Amino acid sequence: MPRNQQILLVSRPQGQASVDNFRLVECDTPPLADGHVLVRHHYLSLDPYMRGRMNEGKSYAAPQPLGEVMIGGTVGRVVESRHPRYAPGDWVVGMGGWQLYSVVDANQPGVLRKVDVSRIPPSHYLGAVGMPGVTAWYGLVKIIEPKPGQTITVSAAAGAVGSAVGVLAKQRGCRVVGIAGGPDKCAYVRDELGFDDCIDYKQHPDLRALAGALKATCPDGIDGHFENVGGTVLDAVMLRANAFARVALCGMIAGYDGQPLPMLNPALILINRMRIEGFIVSEHMEVWPEALAELGELVGSGRFRPRESVAQGLAAAPEAFLGMLKGRNFGKQLVKLVDD
Amino acid sequence: MPRNQQILLVSRPQGQASVDNFRLVECDTPPLADGHVLVRHHYLSLDPYMRGRMNEGKSYAAPQPLGEVMIGGTVGRVVESRHPRYAPGDWVVGMGGWQLYSVVDANQPGVLRKVDVSRIPPSHYLGAVGMPGVTAWYGLVKIIEPKPGQTITVSAAAGAVGSAVGVLAKQRGCRVVGIAGGPDKCAYVRDELGFDDCIDYKQHPDLRALAGALKATCPDGIDGHFENVGGTVLDAVMLRANAFARVALCGMIAGYDGQPLPMLNPALILINRMRIEGFIVSEHMEVWPEALAELGELVGSGRFRPRESVAQGLAAAPEAFLGMLKGRNFGKQLVKLVDD
Repeated sequence: MPRNQQILLVSRPQGQASVDNFRLVECDTPPLADGHVLVRHHYLSLDPYMRGRMNEGKSYAAPQPLGEVMIGGTVGRVVESRHPRYAPGDWVVGMGGWQLYSVVDANQPGVLRKVDVSRIPPSHYLGAVGMPGVTAWYGLVKIIEPKPGQTITVSAAAGAVGSAVGVLAKQRGCRVVGIAGGPDKCAYVRDELGFDDCIDYKQHPDLRALAGALKATCPDGIDGHFENVGGTVLDAVMLRANAFARVALCGMIAGYDGQPLPMLNPALILINRMRIEGFIVSEHMEVWPEALAELGELVGSGRFRPRESVAQGLAAAPEAFLGMLKGRNFGKQLVKLVDD
Repeated sequence: MPRNQQILLVSRPQGQASVDNFRLVECDTPPLADGHVLVRHHYLSLDPYMRGRMNEGKSYAAPQPLGEVMIGGTVGRVVESRHPRYAPGDWVVGMGGWQLYSVVDANQPGVLRKVDVSRIPPSHYLGAVGMPGVTAWYGLVKIIEPKPGQTITVSAAAGAVGSAVGVLAKQRGCRVVGIAGGPDKCAYVRDELGFDDCIDYKQHPDLRALAGALKATCPDGIDGHFENVGGTVLDAVMLRANAFARVALCGMIAGYDGQPLPMLNPALILINRMRIEGFIVSEHMEVWPEALAELGELVGSGRFRPRESVAQGLAAAPEAFLGMLKGRNFGKQLVKLVDD
């Protein structure tokens, strides 16, 4: 059996996460039991939700246990199979974790999904045609429920989730305005993703400025908002929200380090008769087939070309992860685990 | 034509509202045009939403104009009619305002509603069998969507809206816990209204204490919450909310005086996958018949006996209104405009 490398969580962050919270170890892959499959990971997905799992305490998921392999989505190929549905060479998506190989009991429902890489590059199954894409689809379609002509805003618009929200909302005839950090990301959101506009929040550092920028580019107000960040962005959107505006609350990345991030004026929920709803896409498995079909078609046809930031090698994962939490990535953050 | 008395809004509050914002004036009632009806008001309803109307600036309703009669719900009797559907002596509910008489164009749809006072005392058409009752019904039935066995909490539980929320939730097989100020109100909520428990927020003056009290009396967490107040109560409920908890946001009375009232930890909306929705009952007229039928049956049969605080005489309205904003009333706040 091949030699494996793994990254474990070895301590919990006090405030900001750091590389010291992780440790790279080597070990053997275990021999395959009947029904099991050995997968070599080609890409590891890095996602903001992982920061929440590093904390102890109440959240929607159990904390990541200390001393165990960090959880994470992976796409890779079957190396060896003792399950009739999988053969060496098959491309599969799963939650393989921060490691080079995983051994999977393929009889457990949903742990492995075979994917077709003829039209869609495998890495996109961790992004636009994977969990982030379905997250975008669920929040937009099921919570925001956009109508043609409505104005939809999206924070972290250059990211894996935000970019998909915008493309899906454009498909539905909406005016779509992104919020992102820096001129490069804003240009990508406007010019490559096809958003109608993108606000650089770094140019509008306080609530008043950001609300003013939203007012300028959303003259008819905001009907729906997809929130990946929280804090000032959400406060500003609430000031410009129309009656019956919907907010899909997907991430509060600004609050992951422990400091609570208050909502300045929740009375606006009443004044604007808003609906704010938090969700986790893994609790809505019933939408995945429909969502993946639409997203696969958009990516496969080339109408949606999501960018990726790719770090090379498992050892680079902690730095890449911390950089993503600070917004240093551009599009979907991945770690490539094989050499070309 | 009889001589009328009116209370006008003559200035907007700077911070807290005061009696100086109002002025009592006398005038003649105008002669009746064809299709018009003269109504003598027996009761005027005082409601928290009026405080919002006193402010200038963006809200769900236009501000109350200065120099005009304060808006408000009224129940009274027809004195004179030039409309075929109304006859002297008929009991009618309408938005007559803070005055003794109103002249109504009865051809306008919805401005007057005849009511049957044989089983239900007329004043209840301003409370449990009126706008506050329908407000409770809409937020509970349409937003919270309670299931039997779930735990529902209600702030301002002794008030006109809160009391109806609790009674309606008990009808649906829920465990219902109120939050109210002071031992008398809590005893009323428990013993007369039939809530399972009531927390005196004055005995639990900070977030930690209130969350602890909620934990003690809601051991299975909170599945739905009806919010009439905002602030610490909502923060504490969010700490104890179960997955997929719903919050119907009906009032933020603590914020009416201008100071924004932040929500401490909106990340809990995500962590608990909550849905928070603001609403105004006048935008959901389609539910009124069904809601009033249930509420009328509960009050008419004596299963729901809402308390009332009744001030005597139009001149007492401003003081009674300001007292209600401070929680000094007990149940529905009314002003009686006739002598017995």
